[in-house]
Amino acid sequence: MALHNMNTQEHSLFFKQNRLCNLLDIQIPVIQAGMIWCSGWKLAAAVSNTGGLGIIGAGSMYPDVLKTHIAHIKQATTKPYGVNLPLFYPDIDAHIETIIHEKVPIVITSAGNPTLYTQKFKKHDIKVMHVIANRKFALKALEAGVDALIAEGVEAGGHNGFEETTTLTLIPLIRQITDIPLIAAGGIATGSQMLAAIAMGADGVQMGTAFVTAEESSAHDNFKQMIINSAEGDTELRLKKLIPVRLLKNHFYELVRQAEENAASVEELKALLGRGRAKKGMFEGDLIEGELEIGQAAALINEIKPASIIIHQLINEYIKSYQNLIQQHTN
Amino acid sequence: MALHNMNTQEHSLFFKQNRLCNLLDIQIPVIQAGMIWCSGWKLAAAVSNTGGLGIIGAGSMYPDVLKTHIAHIKQATTKPYGVNLPLFYPDIDAHIETIIHEKVPIVITSAGNPTLYTQKFKKHDIKVMHVIANRKFALKALEAGVDALIAEGVEAGGHNGFEETTTLTLIPLIRQITDIPLIAAGGIATGSQMLAAIAMGADGVQMGTAFVTAEESSAHDNFKQMIINSAEGDTELRLKKLIPVRLLKNHFYELVRQAEENAASVEELKALLGRGRAKKGMFEGDLIEGELEIGQAAALINEIKPASIIIHQLINEYIKSYQNLIQQHTN
Repeated sequence: MALHNMNTQEHSLFFKQNRLCNLLDIQIPVIQAGMIWCSGWKLAAAVSNTGGLGIIGAGSMYPDVLKTHIAHIKQATTKPYGVNLPLFYPDIDAHIETIIHEKVPIVITSAGNPTLYTQKFKKHDIKVMHVIANRKFALKALEAGVDALIAEGVEAGGHNGFEETTTLTLIPLIRQITDIPLIAAGGIATGSQMLAAIAMGADGVQMGTAFVTAEESSAHDNFKQMIINSAEGDTELRLKKLIPVRLLKNHFYELVRQAEENAASVEELKALLGRGRAKKGMFEGDLIEGELEIGQAAALINEIKPASIIIHQLINEYIKSYQNLIQQHTN
Repeated sequence: MALHNMNTQEHSLFFKQNRLCNLLDIQIPVIQAGMIWCSGWKLAAAVSNTGGLGIIGAGSMYPDVLKTHIAHIKQATTKPYGVNLPLFYPDIDAHIETIIHEKVPIVITSAGNPTLYTQKFKKHDIKVMHVIANRKFALKALEAGVDALIAEGVEAGGHNGFEETTTLTLIPLIRQITDIPLIAAGGIATGSQMLAAIAMGADGVQMGTAFVTAEESSAHDNFKQMIINSAEGDTELRLKKLIPVRLLKNHFYELVRQAEENAASVEELKALLGRGRAKKGMFEGDLIEGELEIGQAAALINEIKPASIIIHQLINEYIKSYQNLIQQHTN
């Protein structure tokens, strides 16, 4: 099998038995994470058009903005796409109405109680996946009747679970309690890591950090460049007294670190964080005062590329890693 | 291929092309980590006799104690075994002399500068592997001429790197810079995780937490039972101002947490830690005042078993996961 320059059609042959692809009607079991300030319709359409699942991140959008992005993606692709909906979103009813009215095919819920809206979406034939970081919420999501689980380890960027369980530990812990489609998230940016996830019983992967640096991402170029130039140890889980969040180390991170080392209270940390810090850093490119949410996979990413190239290189590497593995065990 | 009750000989067929097995003259690419207070000659001999590599943990042994353990293991197995030598050990010259004099076949060095002793051991035909948690020390170890690298992610028990890089992120980062045999460590206790590590280009795995709970481990039964009963989120990386260490949550952990949240200084933390806390907890079974070092894999372990059963179940599961993976990609 030729490894180079394979296209979506060739790659899809490799995954034609994949349960997640069948569930979502996609060709490649790669989900682009919904990421505030980075994942609008352009990125989502590019991922969906390459055979993965593109996601509009509604967490940083006013209701009208989400409507506009959905209108755009319907023009930009005929393939399935999704919306990521953090359940703490203040104007959540407006978002839910939009999603149902616009017949968005897939919703990913996160950061809240999955029992609240799962059946409401399913009644409208919308597939629901829920992001969890521990068994307790996995069990809640299963009870709520979700179609798939996204299990996200502590290496992920942005908000994280309190248990700090890593992806390598979390996937077997979740696979032991359910047979439904399972997506591994956190730390994944290479094809060998995707193979590792599937070896542990996941049906696909969700990647955030890698797609933040995609050409089509709406992250500011300053932020993309800083990710490209970062190395291991350049992110850290902070603000554990609020909600743990993985940050890229910059001036704002340093203020947080010092405050926490001086035993800052919840109120002091909230005041330091203030409002609009993530937008300032990730969308407006203020690398000094901005909050830069990114995952450990940043250390594995060295180039800004179109989303289609990110996915094709990922799958080429997946197939290469798979063939290496087979060869090791062939007499 | 029958999956149940396979023995070392059958399992070794599955790994007959494995580079790590060839390098170390073992049958199964599983290394038992050297763990203070848990890994004496009994555990090491049980692992080596099953076809893996058993390791005597010298970090908690006086020079005479190490000599005794080496004398015992020579009686208990004819297979290769190793000694783990933390390079900050106060009486390190005595340990090195013992290792060379007794012709210990393999040394694993950790927690220090690999350039110091690698060539000294190699001159005496002793194979050297070095434990690293980042690229910087991997490059130093490569320069020193080690035979293999053990890359340990933040999910590991006990002392950890400052970067907090997880195993899933670390293995590709290290594999990108070297082709020498690479062992994945941190968080691994199941066969599907071992397959994941090898899918990412590792040649084998090192497991600590799983072997702490082995029947032959010298960990106190109280400690073993507490590990068996623990779940996700029951360990946490603490004492980052000293050397980061992953602890099982107990009363002592709680004292550390409170001290750190109240901005304790390095001196205050040292005073709180005191001396002999790890022995008290892990060896003497004081679950209240003792320091209990363990990895996130504790959540995956539910039973005290002989080391041979741990290894055979691991490899049975590895083969089953491998066959599942193949089946997914077979038309």
